[in-house]
Amino acid sequence: MQWWPQMEERASIENKVYLDHAATTPVLPEVLDAMVDVYKHHYGNASSLHSIGQDAKQLMESARESVAKVLGANPSEIVFTGSGTEADNIAIQGAAFAMKKKGNHVITSNIEHPAVKNTVKYLESFGFETTEVPVDEDGIIMIDKLEEAITPQTTLITVMYANNEIGTIQPIAEIGEIATRNGIIFHTDAVQAFGKIPINPETDGFHLLSASAHKIYGPKGVGLLYIKNGGTLKGVGKYIQPIIQGGGHERGFRSATENVPGIVGFAKACEIAMESMDTEGERERKLRDELMAGILEIEDTTINGHRTRRLPNNVNASFNHVEGESLLLRLDMAGYECSTGSACSSHDLKASHVLTAIGCDPEIAHGSLRITLGRSTEDETISSFLADLEEIVAGLRSISSTWKK
Amino acid sequence: MQWWPQMEERASIENKVYLDHAATTPVLPEVLDAMVDVYKHHYGNASSLHSIGQDAKQLMESARESVAKVLGANPSEIVFTGSGTEADNIAIQGAAFAMKKKGNHVITSNIEHPAVKNTVKYLESFGFETTEVPVDEDGIIMIDKLEEAITPQTTLITVMYANNEIGTIQPIAEIGEIATRNGIIFHTDAVQAFGKIPINPETDGFHLLSASAHKIYGPKGVGLLYIKNGGTLKGVGKYIQPIIQGGGHERGFRSATENVPGIVGFAKACEIAMESMDTEGERERKLRDELMAGILEIEDTTINGHRTRRLPNNVNASFNHVEGESLLLRLDMAGYECSTGSACSSHDLKASHVLTAIGCDPEIAHGSLRITLGRSTEDETISSFLADLEEIVAGLRSISSTWKK
Repeated sequence: MQWWPQMEERASIENKVYLDHAATTPVLPEVLDAMVDVYKHHYGNASSLHSIGQDAKQLMESARESVAKVLGANPSEIVFTGSGTEADNIAIQGAAFAMKKKGNHVITSNIEHPAVKNTVKYLESFGFETTEVPVDEDGIIMIDKLEEAITPQTTLITVMYANNEIGTIQPIAEIGEIATRNGIIFHTDAVQAFGKIPINPETDGFHLLSASAHKIYGPKGVGLLYIKNGGTLKGVGKYIQPIIQGGGHERGFRSATENVPGIVGFAKACEIAMESMDTEGERERKLRDELMAGILEIEDTTINGHRTRRLPNNVNASFNHVEGESLLLRLDMAGYECSTGSACSSHDLKASHVLTAIGCDPEIAHGSLRITLGRSTEDETISSFLADLEEIVAGLRSISSTWKK
Repeated sequence: MQWWPQMEERASIENKVYLDHAATTPVLPEVLDAMVDVYKHHYGNASSLHSIGQDAKQLMESARESVAKVLGANPSEIVFTGSGTEADNIAIQGAAFAMKKKGNHVITSNIEHPAVKNTVKYLESFGFETTEVPVDEDGIIMIDKLEEAITPQTTLITVMYANNEIGTIQPIAEIGEIATRNGIIFHTDAVQAFGKIPINPETDGFHLLSASAHKIYGPKGVGLLYIKNGGTLKGVGKYIQPIIQGGGHERGFRSATENVPGIVGFAKACEIAMESMDTEGERERKLRDELMAGILEIEDTTINGHRTRRLPNNVNASFNHVEGESLLLRLDMAGYECSTGSACSSHDLKASHVLTAIGCDPEIAHGSLRITLGRSTEDETISSFLADLEEIVAGLRSISSTWKK
């Protein structure tokens, strides 16, 4: 908070233009209505045998069907969790431990979200060996390096579907093919991609996938873990085990009284995401491209991440000779809510490990900005945002000691 | 569901008399209003640096203060989790692993909730030794056996504050004194006690405590872990570590985007619980005693658990020659929602380990019923419930092959 001294002076948050949809999204009115109905009229514990409990259970199972449809999965392959982070942890810790007798090597990329990166690192304290495969300058994993990293000890590959900072979409089907060919379990953190672009376990070849409700206009505090075939595969056997122990909810993978209102809200968000994925995705993609083109007209500016193989709502840019934090603050004062990196590392003043991985100079990485569009982003916003951005960048450069022009 | 064929025929759940408040509680209107306000107007990610994020963070920190007050704790000692079960797991796994170099022995009681019982058991797969200390016929832990169980390897004692099935309240301060005297960390699962009876870390002597919002008219999907002094103690050092890895939220103990609406709802539920603990507790205690007295007038009936050292809202009774499941079903059809054991083990047809631990014959344990009162329980309900209960018990006994009279 000391970092942010002007806090008190800033305008009401109600009038802000929210351009940080990768950090979180507001719940849609339909989602909130569905949740309020559950809170008011269906408050049972889904494990209770009486009518009120069974009523809650039916709502939850119906929600599981809606959520499974996003992946074309069987509802029995969906486990509800308390967050995307928890889903990542169950997938990675749960698979590594379940298969420890077969091998102790886990492969990941060097641009994962901390929920994956730190979980893989944590495994090292239990005797696992881990390899971080590099990405190219667009943020795409080097497939040849991935294949080279595989050893007879490799049991798990975990590579994100799309990056949370730069939006780059990975060649998931290629990784899936490699994993399957080598008898390795493949987990993908799809927290940013789920509900935004088509995802399918059959064509993509993953066995485990994590997602989160609050990134797609559902509630915070609800995530999911897709577990192919319920956690057992021919030739592999049981490939995942729980990390949280308890009453055996969610087929033993996530013990805890089920958050039925949150799960129903997640389902409603999934239904809306599926209905409008094409139209809303196309609308945001156009705005994204317009925004990227406009940013590139500002001199000494770079777009980070792949130009086309990126999430429809993500723009990430670096402005030379500009401090990202100052830029964020000025934009906030002007009414625009953006991010420097991911929300999860926003208090960490080190240069983003993602930008460093794609070869961004640390100096330049510090001057980076993430703008993530969403349903509330109006078409007209882009031009006014660009005008304000250009003025603010020019202002910051005019007081920069390194700006020579 | 096969077990429950009459499902379709049963009456609307709206007219049911809910007597299963230990399984879960409906959110209070004030709690829902507070949550809806956050969903609508304060949707930021509490880790985002912009105004909308900081606005959410301020709400969360204010909520933390309200929640801490229930324990007379410092807000910095409260970690929000996704459930009581998760809090139990972080406490037990986190403390056992953090102190593994000091010792590998964990002590618990033999009447714990599965979230504790199964987590302690899970530790055995990592080389820990565990001891389950027995309870007496009222369900109170045998303090002398607890002291005898301590070895130089003991690092952790985990004993619940009050039992979820029979309501018995443990001598927490005595256990706390023993733990402190022996330099052992003491965790208590207070999911059923929190917000219902006075709890204080100073007088009770625990270092870790778990609680859950949905047991006190707050939302499902939110729990808390109290961590004395933030996880480090003089002479012990760092005594707890996280099990979920990620962005370092909740001072590193529970990574995941914070569920701000749920946390704010939990805080509102805590405020209401504190305001009315004396009056509502006293009201429920009177109804509980009236209900227990009435049940004992039905012949061949036993009250399980301690008569006075029990939660104000808990009644647990066994009816000889009656199947608990049939009793539950008939009561449900008559409009009363009760439980046979805890909701978490309601699909498990084994006799309750709690009733077995207090010496209940398995035959008799099968004919047990848990009735848990709450704010919605009207004073007049007790007499009508008792009349219906007596009739249903008589009816079931009349068709029982073992009932001789």
